[in-house]
Amino acid sequence: MDLAALKIDIAEVPTEENPQLVLQKSRDFYWYSPVLKRQLDSVKADIVARPRNEDELLLVVGACFKNEVPLTVRGSGTGNYGQAMPLAGGLVLDLCNMNRVIEVKNGTVVAEPGAILADIDKVTRPTGQELRMFPSTYHTASIGGFIAGGSGGVGSVRWGGLRDVGNIVRVKMAAMDGSIPTVLDLSGRDINRVSHAYGTTGVITEVEMPLAPAVEWVDLITAFPTLEAAVHHGEALAAADGLLLKNVAVMDAAIAPYLRRHKPYLPDGEAFVVTIAASFAAGDVAALGKRAGGRVVLRTDTLEAEARSRLPPAFELSWNHTTLRALRMDPDITYLQVLYPQPGIAGKVLKMSALLGEEAPTHLEFVRFDGAVGCFGLPLVRFTTEERLDEIIALHEDNGCPIFNPHRYTLEEGGMKQTDPLQLGFKRRSDPKGLLNPGKMIAWDDPDFDYGRPYLFPSLSA
Amino acid sequence: MDLAALKIDIAEVPTEENPQLVLQKSRDFYWYSPVLKRQLDSVKADIVARPRNEDELLLVVGACFKNEVPLTVRGSGTGNYGQAMPLAGGLVLDLCNMNRVIEVKNGTVVAEPGAILADIDKVTRPTGQELRMFPSTYHTASIGGFIAGGSGGVGSVRWGGLRDVGNIVRVKMAAMDGSIPTVLDLSGRDINRVSHAYGTTGVITEVEMPLAPAVEWVDLITAFPTLEAAVHHGEALAAADGLLLKNVAVMDAAIAPYLRRHKPYLPDGEAFVVTIAASFAAGDVAALGKRAGGRVVLRTDTLEAEARSRLPPAFELSWNHTTLRALRMDPDITYLQVLYPQPGIAGKVLKMSALLGEEAPTHLEFVRFDGAVGCFGLPLVRFTTEERLDEIIALHEDNGCPIFNPHRYTLEEGGMKQTDPLQLGFKRRSDPKGLLNPGKMIAWDDPDFDYGRPYLFPSLSA
Ligand SMILES: Cc1cc2nc3c(=O)[nH]c(=O)nc-3n(C[C@H](O)[C@H](O)[C@H](O)COP(=O)(O)OP(=O)(O)OC[C@H]3O[C@@H](n4cnc5c(N)ncnc54)[C@H](O)[C@@H]3O)c2cc1C
Ligand SMILES: Cc1cc2nc3c(=O)[nH]c(=O)nc-3n(C[C@H](O)[C@H](O)[C@H](O)COP(=O)(O)OP(=O)(O)OC[C@H]3O[C@@H](n4cnc5c(N)ncnc54)[C@H](O)[C@@H]3O)c2cc1C
Repeated sequence: MDLAALKIDIAEVPTEENPQLVLQKSRDFYWYSPVLKRQLDSVKADIVARPRNEDELLLVVGACFKNEVPLTVRGSGTGNYGQAMPLAGGLVLDLCNMNRVIEVKNGTVVAEPGAILADIDKVTRPTGQELRMFPSTYHTASIGGFIAGGSGGVGSVRWGGLRDVGNIVRVKMAAMDGSIPTVLDLSGRDINRVSHAYGTTGVITEVEMPLAPAVEWVDLITAFPTLEAAVHHGEALAAADGLLLKNVAVMDAAIAPYLRRHKPYLPDGEAFVVTIAASFAAGDVAALGKRAGGRVVLRTDTLEAEARSRLPPAFELSWNHTTLRALRMDPDITYLQVLYPQPGIAGKVLKMSALLGEEAPTHLEFVRFDGAVGCFGLPLVRFTTEERLDEIIALHEDNGCPIFNPHRYTLEEGGMKQTDPLQLGFKRRSDPKGLLNPGKMIAWDDPDFDYGRPYLFPSLSA
Repeated sequence: MDLAALKIDIAEVPTEENPQLVLQKSRDFYWYSPVLKRQLDSVKADIVARPRNEDELLLVVGACFKNEVPLTVRGSGTGNYGQAMPLAGGLVLDLCNMNRVIEVKNGTVVAEPGAILADIDKVTRPTGQELRMFPSTYHTASIGGFIAGGSGGVGSVRWGGLRDVGNIVRVKMAAMDGSIPTVLDLSGRDINRVSHAYGTTGVITEVEMPLAPAVEWVDLITAFPTLEAAVHHGEALAAADGLLLKNVAVMDAAIAPYLRRHKPYLPDGEAFVVTIAASFAAGDVAALGKRAGGRVVLRTDTLEAEARSRLPPAFELSWNHTTLRALRMDPDITYLQVLYPQPGIAGKVLKMSALLGEEAPTHLEFVRFDGAVGCFGLPLVRFTTEERLDEIIALHEDNGCPIFNPHRYTLEEGGMKQTDPLQLGFKRRSDPKGLLNPGKMIAWDDPDFDYGRPYLFPSLSA
């Protein structure tokens, strides 16, 4: 790589070389994982560039191609698998300056990739519309980073996952294929070439996302004497096609202490279900909870304004925010990502809970999955050793519950331990020199890799 | 019944006694069924009342109670099981004058029961909202009649059935329990006391319905070389959580000739899938169809305005409108209502199609059902005799496909051959004299009825 030449080529683009600031922009939430923390702590880019528009962005991409400088895109750096960390050094392309909402249409929104999710909704909401789904990092994550690094979250209980057909309308991207990069408009299945590819196949320069109706949302918490009753209530809510819900999370009693502001509402020793419902559906949610043997312990629509203002929104108790809150109080906690497949979700959840007990308190997020109710687990794990973590993973897999391992920084190991052939084939054309986010797609580096052991990108072992 | 006294009591309310007009308002689409046509042809009320507001409505209900006059509510009379036909004579309460949209809120609409579905949407649409679901009689049916007599339809592929929790927010009703009737506000599960009760448990006087985003809708038709390919495409569309669809119908090639205006677009001998999709999802629907081996033969968003203006909307090809179009061209055609249960929907559909062939061309409507993909069949049936119709019904049931018999006028026989205990228990209080729509709830007339034979209301055999 020729950094000196690169700097001259991109002189007109804002850059950053202060080592402290470059280190900061070379990191994401990788420290969530004790494994990644150990592996990635020394990762650092050489320079950060902050283009202000598509022309500047294309200039940077083209210059990196010409000068053979690795390029790792960064939205807000909230990914927690080290996805945005430049394993081979080089340039971090920070998109914080490309954050405009370009157009709100009837049903969709067009935005620059660096736009923060919550900021997009500020623009769409006056039209009665809002994003269909978002990670619990709604207030900080970028739309480009969500598409390239995320998978779904709040809203997925109605709309399924981010990669399900229809949840991304259009994506514009720049390839790393020449001094003047090719720009492509992708729609339909072609979107999968860059979605959830960690920026290894192209740089997203513009997105069009479908919108949902912006109604008034109410947070409800219903407590249950047993985890079993809570799981059944959660599953019943997720199956209720006519209830407009945004999120359904189920938590073991052991999680309550970590939700500090909400703790006063949570009865000791009781499991609970956290639901976000349309205001006009909240009564039905409460009634279903009571009939399932629960007690509604919190409803933001009947809470006094002052008490309400002291509580974070329910979506910041959910998904990876549950883990974050636990981690903040107890640094020895980490987590896993489990898929409890149909049929018999509840049985699998309760079995794993019985097997692991206090070591891994249950946290579930219900979603729609291929037209049916699906269930992801993000159990908290009281971390002891990497060996024990691997045992816990194996225990899940032996019981028919696949793990999406959040302690791996590669696309393959974090997912289904196989390469997306569409993305690999596309990368051959869009990034022939392999400069985009090196080390994240194993199949590119080592097509014959044996998934029996964890992958270690060469520069990390150096 | 004391009709003379009744007339004095309701003198201030508009009424109709002209025998021709009374006969007309005593009928619905019962003639769809050759069986009901034979049984119900002579049914006629004595008088029709048309209250203009809730006070007048309550006056009529109270006067019927006092004078022991049977009362049968009528919305638009588009029900096709004789639901709105006054088997015991008496008064038809025609709600055509109570058709105001009272209030449009963020997420719901409040309306009088006689409001026509399409008219409600004319008021809500400027707010970016519309009804979640409607029968294909959208342009004629009333919201009260839909709730009391319908079950779902266009929109159910996303929102499930009308009776699923959340699809009706609130219902106000008058009981037939005194000269001054009790008025109740029902929400949650209590709504089931009057929903799909054919007006046997109360008169709905006001409704609040949840709304969905009003986007631009596109009609698409995709043709397939085999019915099998079409069924699989339909099921895949229905399972796509991220695609904003309003309806997915699958039709056997034999149905094409009955869809006269659309016929020029439909290739001979090919099965086809009729989809209503959000404009921004239409490209994905087309791409999925092509990948499944189909050809998009019609897309209203790419059609010239003039050609488009000659086509009825796709929802008027769907649900019972398919039957209606066939019936108009061939009066010997009737239909059935089949549930193809999970798992293995496609296998069951194809088996029934193979068994019945030309006698019962396949027509499917995909829905969401308890959080999963569900499939209803409305096969056309070339009617010969009532015995053969019963054989065809038995053949379905023997192959694990329950029939909701549209050739029966009672709640029980049209459904699961059992009484809704909630509705029966409620009727004991809300209609102690049994004056509301007599003959429609078997359990009320004959608790020990043996479902081995069809029910015949006593006055019909006289
Ligand atoms: C507390 C917490 C909660 C979370 N909850 C969720 C959740 O509910 N659901 C979920 O899916 N994730 C969740 N995550 C993970 C993460 O927040 C999301 O994936 C988020 O959307 C990432 O957005 P970002 O802008 O921070 O992306 P970054 O972290 O900056 O980037 C993510 C990946 O995308 C690439 N990338 C970024 N922008 C582009 C671009 N324009 N073009 C190409 N590649 C690009 C980066 O190189 C990186 O590989 C959570 C993380 C935390 C820490
Ligand atoms: C061509 C065609 C297509 C159809 N498609 C569908 C479909 O897709 N989905 C579907 O569910 N149905 C369908 N139907 C049946 C029917 O159109 C619907 O059920 C419709 O909603 C009935 O509305 P209506 O105003 O005509 O009711 P009516 O026929 O007037 O009444 C229906 C029943 O409700 C009762 N009722 C009416 N108003 C009230 C009230 N205010 N209070 C208490 N009881 C009341 C009546 O007594 C009667 O028993 C179809 C029928 C036809 C002819």
